[in-house]
Amino acid sequence: MDRSRLEAFSDGVFAVAITLLALNLTLAGPGPDRLQHQLWEHRWSFGAYGLSFLIIGIIWVNHHVLIKSIARVDRTLLFLNLALLLFVVLIPFSTATVAQYLPVHGGDVKVAMVLYSAVFLGMSLGFGLIFEWTLHGDHRIEPLPPQAHWPARLRFVGGALVYVVAIVVSLFSADAAFALIALTAVYYIVERTPTSPAAPDSPDGSPLVG
Amino acid sequence: MDRSRLEAFSDGVFAVAITLLALNLTLAGPGPDRLQHQLWEHRWSFGAYGLSFLIIGIIWVNHHVLIKSIARVDRTLLFLNLALLLFVVLIPFSTATVAQYLPVHGGDVKVAMVLYSAVFLGMSLGFGLIFEWTLHGDHRIEPLPPQAHWPARLRFVGGALVYVVAIVVSLFSADAAFALIALTAVYYIVERTPTSPAAPDSPDGSPLVG
Amino acid sequence: MDRSRLEAFSDGVFAVAITLLALNLTLAGPGPDRLQHQLWEHRWSFGAYGLSFLIIGIIWVNHHVLIKSIARVDRTLLFLNLALLLFVVLIPFSTATVAQYLPVHGGDVKVAMVLYSAVFLGMSLGFGLIFEWTLHGDHRIEPLPPQAHWPARLRFVGGALVYVVAIVVSLFSADAAFALIALTAVYYIVERTPTSPAAPDSPDGSPLVG
Amino acid sequence: MDRSRLEAFSDGVFAVAITLLALNLTLAGPGPDRLQHQLWEHRWSFGAYGLSFLIIGIIWVNHHVLIKSIARVDRTLLFLNLALLLFVVLIPFSTATVAQYLPVHGGDVKVAMVLYSAVFLGMSLGFGLIFEWTLHGDHRIEPLPPQAHWPARLRFVGGALVYVVAIVVSLFSADAAFALIALTAVYYIVERTPTSPAAPDSPDGSPLVG
Repeated sequence: MDRSRLEAFSDGVFAVAITLLALNLTLAGPGPDRLQHQLWEHRWSFGAYGLSFLIIGIIWVNHHVLIKSIARVDRTLLFLNLALLLFVVLIPFSTATVAQYLPVHGGDVKVAMVLYSAVFLGMSLGFGLIFEWTLHGDHRIEPLPPQAHWPARLRFVGGALVYVVAIVVSLFSADAAFALIALTAVYYIVERTPTSPAAPDSPDGSPLVG
Repeated sequence: MDRSRLEAFSDGVFAVAITLLALNLTLAGPGPDRLQHQLWEHRWSFGAYGLSFLIIGIIWVNHHVLIKSIARVDRTLLFLNLALLLFVVLIPFSTATVAQYLPVHGGDVKVAMVLYSAVFLGMSLGFGLIFEWTLHGDHRIEPLPPQAHWPARLRFVGGALVYVVAIVVSLFSADAAFALIALTAVYYIVERTPTSPAAPDSPDGSPLVG
Repeated sequence: MDRSRLEAFSDGVFAVAITLLALNLTLAGPGPDRLQHQLWEHRWSFGAYGLSFLIIGIIWVNHHVLIKSIARVDRTLLFLNLALLLFVVLIPFSTATVAQYLPVHGGDVKVAMVLYSAVFLGMSLGFGLIFEWTLHGDHRIEPLPPQAHWPARLRFVGGALVYVVAIVVSLFSADAAFALIALTAVYYIVERTPTSPAAPDSPDGSPLVG
Repeated sequence: MDRSRLEAFSDGVFAVAITLLALNLTLAGPGPDRLQHQLWEHRWSFGAYGLSFLIIGIIWVNHHVLIKSIARVDRTLLFLNLALLLFVVLIPFSTATVAQYLPVHGGDVKVAMVLYSAVFLGMSLGFGLIFEWTLHGDHRIEPLPPQAHWPARLRFVGGALVYVVAIVVSLFSADAAFALIALTAVYYIVERTPTSPAAPDSPDGSPLVG
């Protein structure tokens, strides 16, 4: 069992991606536009920054819990983890794009929101693949009982489904899709399942968000 | 007890944020403006770089000490830590903004300094929330005696208060607010409490700066 | 034996390099060009991003396996590792350059593809030097039998040879060189050697790609 | 004894700084200037990239060795380490600046080279302060005998002196100062002291470069 480098590399990627998010906030600086006005004009950037920060934070917490449940690391897991990180690394890009188009609100903002939702969907599917991998073989320290497989999978499908719905909603209203993703993120943060024996640390490694 | 990934992820974010600070120093390069002159014009950028570096460094040292005192990591702590990091990641942005406006010194520099102080205040409050969390339940390896709770909290309030005062002072003089934050940072670095049994490592996890 | 900081530093460099790749994807934003069109125009950037991500990921997996096999760390290994990282850090630069020239497809795209392949060749040779170092002295935890040295080296030569061929092919067709590198990367990911006792984790530290 | 977070944070900063170096290599891309020509024009950037990479790499190796020799971490060490990192983080900035002015070779290149050398001098002094700290109290796992203090310090003074000389030489010839720093870096990499009992890992923590 050697999870340390998998964790160290993933934590590095999560940390750099979450910090690069704020690079997009750079203002034009002194000029005809007052600073207050520039900050107000950037309110969408701040909102997109905050939302993407929360989602990367949630997926990091889930990754933390899931990897802790794993008995051994093999090459398949390393590459599934890379598939997850491929989308995590795209989040600063998709966040910057949606923040560019939200203030304009022309037809392109819908395309930008589809892109934004699709990157989260890819991340969600990557995470789901890792979870699926943990269900097979002797990959978990404490195997989940078979009857717990489908409920756990359904939580994943639920999480991924939010992003599929967000993609569809984007075609009608970018703002509504943004609100949907934001509400889901807040839900996963405040969600408590105190009656479950798995709480508060969710040691069964079940996802907190897809 | 599994603090290692919390520490690894936080260290990654601190390390990237502290290194991105220096990205703002980029000069215009060869042109009509002599390099000496460009460096002199950027003196505010260097000052803001140095101050933000110190404050991130101090908060990292405090984070190091506080997390060492924690007995176990739960989801609440992970999300409180994310709240702290949300503001840490904004520091390169607020530093770049204040460095843009300090040389101009128009009315906007006051807004920029309010932003700069407010990001530190958010960081301070995020750190205070983590500390408050450690006071409850069985979260600390060695629980603080109840009579030590309020003195420790007062140190936090004192730290956060500096940033509240800096916000108010910013409305009158950006330079004075900058000097206030800088003096506080220097104070926390040179501060020694050799008579306290907690010295030199402050194992009670009490904050060195709010 | 103290491999932890070698791993931590290398993981940090791999993580930052792989995350910086996506910085090159930044779009022009709202303007006369529709977003769909901009994304389509950037298809080469996305392709180059994906390919470089895969190759850094593969080399990270190999690095992980190779370092695990090492008995002790000395200065020579630290500097050989730096030689590898010197080229890893150049990958975001060579990727950005090839992504700039692929859409234009003039004569310069061949030079860009030579550069792109040459950086991978340098990385491959750096990795090969570390592997060669492990074959000598008491550098491995479980020494490879001498008759296994040349087969292992041949796998390296094979990997490096792909990049030499890609450099030559670049002079005729940048697209063909890109396809060659991409096919090799995919091959190394899906490659399984289930009959080998070294599978699935390749504990002999033999390279998965040159 | 808790060196792990000091090492993790420092490794993070070293890794980000060394990777950001290559951000300065970005080319103008397709245009009237052929790619070969752009690469040739950037030869100074590549040289400065390579040299700064080597020096950060050497200081990382030395940091690795020095921290391994430390018995316990206190607040003084944490802040001395921050002083070292303050200058490490400036290296991408000073490297970008010298790379901007080296191709022009007007009077400003001398100022740029003074800046470049001065940042290395600051790093060297920061490292020297940490080493001095290890000589006092019970800071080392295996205390150096007093008669070994001055020889070790002299090696430091020697290293720092190279940068002082480089600053003076810069005022006459930027190229000569660049060559001096480069030769010193190469010397420290190839230097072997096989007769010393401290070789090959320099467990006495004496610096390999100031």
